[in-house]
Amino acid sequence: MDEIYVIGHKNPDTDSICSAIVYANLKGYIPVRQGELNKETAFALDYFKVPAPQILESGEGKKLVCVDHNEASQMIENWDNAEIIEVIDHHKINFNYGTPIYFHSEPIGCTGTIIAKQNLEAVKANPVLAGLLLSAILSDTVIFKSPTATEEDKAIATELAKVAGIEDMIAFGIELKTKNADVNGRSIEEIIASDFKDFDFNGKKIGIGQIEVVESAEIESKAKGIIDSLQSLKQSGYEAVFFMATDIMKEGTKLFFVGDPEVVEKAFGVKPENNAIYLPGVMSRKKQIVPNLEKAFG
Amino acid sequence: MDEIYVIGHKNPDTDSICSAIVYANLKGYIPVRQGELNKETAFALDYFKVPAPQILESGEGKKLVCVDHNEASQMIENWDNAEIIEVIDHHKINFNYGTPIYFHSEPIGCTGTIIAKQNLEAVKANPVLAGLLLSAILSDTVIFKSPTATEEDKAIATELAKVAGIEDMIAFGIELKTKNADVNGRSIEEIIASDFKDFDFNGKKIGIGQIEVVESAEIESKAKGIIDSLQSLKQSGYEAVFFMATDIMKEGTKLFFVGDPEVVEKAFGVKPENNAIYLPGVMSRKKQIVPNLEKAFG
Repeated sequence: MDEIYVIGHKNPDTDSICSAIVYANLKGYIPVRQGELNKETAFALDYFKVPAPQILESGEGKKLVCVDHNEASQMIENWDNAEIIEVIDHHKINFNYGTPIYFHSEPIGCTGTIIAKQNLEAVKANPVLAGLLLSAILSDTVIFKSPTATEEDKAIATELAKVAGIEDMIAFGIELKTKNADVNGRSIEEIIASDFKDFDFNGKKIGIGQIEVVESAEIESKAKGIIDSLQSLKQSGYEAVFFMATDIMKEGTKLFFVGDPEVVEKAFGVKPENNAIYLPGVMSRKKQIVPNLEKAFG
Repeated sequence: MDEIYVIGHKNPDTDSICSAIVYANLKGYIPVRQGELNKETAFALDYFKVPAPQILESGEGKKLVCVDHNEASQMIENWDNAEIIEVIDHHKINFNYGTPIYFHSEPIGCTGTIIAKQNLEAVKANPVLAGLLLSAILSDTVIFKSPTATEEDKAIATELAKVAGIEDMIAFGIELKTKNADVNGRSIEEIIASDFKDFDFNGKKIGIGQIEVVESAEIESKAKGIIDSLQSLKQSGYEAVFFMATDIMKEGTKLFFVGDPEVVEKAFGVKPENNAIYLPGVMSRKKQIVPNLEKAFG
């Protein structure tokens, strides 16, 4: 039988990595990844003593299960010469494939929640799998503060924490989230690249990066460098490039950008100043940034 | 609370109608349809004494659950001004929507099978709901002869038949399938239109109709009229138009068409004669016709 690979999106986050590892483990498939681990994910894998999946460079000729993504822009190189046998996701859907496949997506906070509830008995029997999915949920829902978070994410996470032996899951979540929030020793380019996604809005290529911090003063002090960095990214074929500096304690996002300020004003109803706007209450790229930009660029 | 409507595809078949009725009943939603019932579906509703859903003319401003379809070409008018809250389907996926939603699709024979297994206890408690989903499965899988049919379709149908009080489900299936197969008193245009779907293959509009018959001599004797009818359909903006005359006993399809014969030869590896080819073993538009044509027109 051909091997089946479980893979998350480009610039993988903790959900993409942990969901791939757990689903592969449950099904006898092979977990793989598309890029480097971020610090938060590396911490989670280290905490539960699980090795990182191998990098898969190309989908050519492979059988793939795609977790935590469904859009071509998030897929592995040569995915169109792969056989996609299944998709499990929680993002908006932009998917076109020639034959019927198993495709399951829900509007909830984390792919890991879906995998946990669909395989609850198996996951509850394995503290390591439970711990990985707990990490994915705490990460993707920003410790349940993101507007994408649902009661179901919280209920499943609570069950998983018990199994994984995590007594205070909120404290564990904060420890997890601070790993990526640490901007010391990283260049602005590295910070922007570490969680950066491409989108195709009506034929226009748009890039949106995000960092979640526990205190936003330091990242906001780097505004000029951020704009310069977005400007040089834009020259590689983007219509516009965005960078979200999201303060998970204040629960708001400073959105830096290069591109047409009128489109940004149309999208969010706020007039930009110095290539940036502040959006109180905004924490989710998927739910609060992408839909607005897709409409405004449409 | 806004009403939620459950709707199947254009030119609804028994799966689109029965899955909409059952899912709406289970969830407290309202079943609707996009067009006239075919004779087979009318027979099934009459058999289980269930009224036909109302026709919904426009999706404008409505909350929709789409069953048995996900492509824009199969959706209700003004679906882009509706709020799609859920999709349950078993076709290939070509779906683009701006926000995350609940989307579930499986590569099995019938949407009704998915609805039955996801709500098994509720469906088993209601002989009418069980009978409607049984009809959908027998219809869509061509009494389990279609290559889209799986063991799961058969197992679920067997359970549903017991609940619905159908002792011989195969005999019931044949009675059901003969209803649409009766070509007496119907014009060729009516026969082609009764199960006709539009597809968008790489920007080219392709139409594919199908009739399933228990004896193909009569429909094949109308070859000239069929080609003439496809020819006049083609003039309304199609790159090519196809009509499958599928013999469910012989398990093969005579595929009539107007359009480029070289593309058809490329798609099926058979040289057309008189605007037609015979494809032994071919019964499924979704699984055996659409993928080949999509590649050939791509």
